[in-house]
Amino acid sequence: MAQQHHDLTDPTAGQVTGDALAGYLRAQATEFLRALRLHRETGGATNGGRNGGASANGGRTAAAAAGGGRTGERPLEAVDAARALRRSARRISGSLHTFRPVLDADWSEQMRPELAWVSGTLALEHAYEARLERLLTALQRLSGSSSLPAQAVGTHHATASERGQLTVGAAKAGALLERQLTLARTRAHSTALQALGSARFHAVADKVAVLASEVPLVAPAADLRPLAAAAQERLTDAVTALPLVTAGSPYNAEALVHGLSPDPPAPHPQDAPWHQVRLLLRLHRYAREVLLGGAAPLDVRLLQAGQALDRHRDASEAAAAAAQAARTPRIAPATAYALGVLHADQRHEVEAARYAFQRTWVKEAVGLS
Amino acid sequence: MAQQHHDLTDPTAGQVTGDALAGYLRAQATEFLRALRLHRETGGATNGGRNGGASANGGRTAAAAAGGGRTGERPLEAVDAARALRRSARRISGSLHTFRPVLDADWSEQMRPELAWVSGTLALEHAYEARLERLLTALQRLSGSSSLPAQAVGTHHATASERGQLTVGAAKAGALLERQLTLARTRAHSTALQALGSARFHAVADKVAVLASEVPLVAPAADLRPLAAAAQERLTDAVTALPLVTAGSPYNAEALVHGLSPDPPAPHPQDAPWHQVRLLLRLHRYAREVLLGGAAPLDVRLLQAGQALDRHRDASEAAAAAAQAARTPRIAPATAYALGVLHADQRHEVEAARYAFQRTWVKEAVGLS
Repeated sequence: MAQQHHDLTDPTAGQVTGDALAGYLRAQATEFLRALRLHRETGGATNGGRNGGASANGGRTAAAAAGGGRTGERPLEAVDAARALRRSARRISGSLHTFRPVLDADWSEQMRPELAWVSGTLALEHAYEARLERLLTALQRLSGSSSLPAQAVGTHHATASERGQLTVGAAKAGALLERQLTLARTRAHSTALQALGSARFHAVADKVAVLASEVPLVAPAADLRPLAAAAQERLTDAVTALPLVTAGSPYNAEALVHGLSPDPPAPHPQDAPWHQVRLLLRLHRYAREVLLGGAAPLDVRLLQAGQALDRHRDASEAAAAAAQAARTPRIAPATAYALGVLHADQRHEVEAARYAFQRTWVKEAVGLS
Repeated sequence: MAQQHHDLTDPTAGQVTGDALAGYLRAQATEFLRALRLHRETGGATNGGRNGGASANGGRTAAAAAGGGRTGERPLEAVDAARALRRSARRISGSLHTFRPVLDADWSEQMRPELAWVSGTLALEHAYEARLERLLTALQRLSGSSSLPAQAVGTHHATASERGQLTVGAAKAGALLERQLTLARTRAHSTALQALGSARFHAVADKVAVLASEVPLVAPAADLRPLAAAAQERLTDAVTALPLVTAGSPYNAEALVHGLSPDPPAPHPQDAPWHQVRLLLRLHRYAREVLLGGAAPLDVRLLQAGQALDRHRDASEAAAAAAQAARTPRIAPATAYALGVLHADQRHEVEAARYAFQRTWVKEAVGLS
């Protein structure tokens, strides 16, 4: 049963009981503990002093700062371990939410916020790093000096002087963003280290260790499928409420409507429903993993929809970071101009991501019906 | 024959001789003279002192400057008359080009640059006015304070504080653009007035008056159709050379590739082939008018393609004006930021216009085949 690719709401399919959930949770808990061990071994917790606050960007020139590339020097294994930790924490937390009625309620209610705290705290450092990389890459592209996307090759007539050069404004904007986001990342790193060493985290890890062998099911014989179907329905409802008609009409210019509004830049009110759908899509994906087990076939459309929403979130936050940087006192007009172009560019990325989601979703809906 | 809607290259259709061209040129010359008379009567040449240079914007606040709306106070009749003058000058000039072999060559070669000078000189004032209006409207939209396009209604959740407000940066950017473009428009107005009063213009007007009764055909019996077909072919070839695959892929981010390039902002090299197609499309349209006569059916797709290219040109020049304004010395960072957002917004309009052209053109190509 678990190996069959079926619609979760299909009433003719057989039951899936608590056993499947217990197996899934045990596997994720084991993965959490493995990642935690790996993280400790690979120095994830030992390099907190490497980026000492204000000196983090001291030795880099503005041109190098805007030159793109990875800004972190953490060992790749530590990055992978932190990602695996977040990944399993999210899956456990999400499953606890979706399948709450079949689990011990007190345990579940206590566990979920703690897991959300772990994955949220660990996610921040990576988010700042990725945001900086996205913004520096965009600055390169906007300066006509990056390699172009494949589709644009042959249509582009850059002169030699246009390549490998950044305007003063773009270089200064890059340096400013690097300074601000590196500082934020360094702080997030310290916070994550403190968190991982805290009694609170040890308590979470202990509970996960127990979960790896003993899942507190209260209704092991209950059918999980209605609960998964409800999660899918929450997703579908939220998608239905999105402005998909607008999103599916290219160049609707909706994402930049408040590009110069006097309100603080983040969070952008029109982005919130999309962020919400992103979370609900994730819960649906995890529920699907629980029901279909390890042999769950890859749903390409679900994957693409999720990637579009990730891109939406990343571009939204990058646009806010550019707007925020433009509020730095005493910056040069050329720097502010470059940040304005960059902000608008990222808001168009937001719009492009909505368009991509709409296309994927319509295809998916047709495919399912 | 002339009333039939046919492909200009259709070999089964009958000949169209020089008579059709003579009739068309006489009609356009008459229209030119009528518009000139109207322009003189409606004060097109009498209000040059109304906008005395630097004082043009003296009494307006920044908020009013960014408040959109028509910035000119010329009588509508004078505006219409100037437009009609340009319109007929372009048609005569274009027909002289396309059908040159059947017309007196010396006369034709002398006449064309003079007509181009007239329409070019008269176009500038209107262009600056339209550019300012486009930019102020965009600033309103980007501040979330304008009425939204119909398709976006219902998807927009502006709070009360978001309406009717401009940031300081947007207001200052609007005031700066108003100052610069009003000054440019005032200068263009003076130049146009001088031109209309010059001996050079009177010589052109005299020649057009002769043309209204006497068209210098050298081959009245020649078939115009191959010449019109050649004009159509030049258009088709130029369109084929456009990066239409990229343009047809929404959110390709191509138009902003040089958004921060260190080169001067205008003219944008990647825009030039599109501007060229715009001119060739116009020549094709005029040739079609000559062949099909007054009963030429409206070709909606040709019209839409032309509108997309007009929008492309307007957005391209508006983006350049925003970039240019950002180079004004001693502007505030908030002003520069707003101009950066505005520049990127207009470059996306450029991209949107290319997309619209591609869609229209593909439809048209399918329709013709």
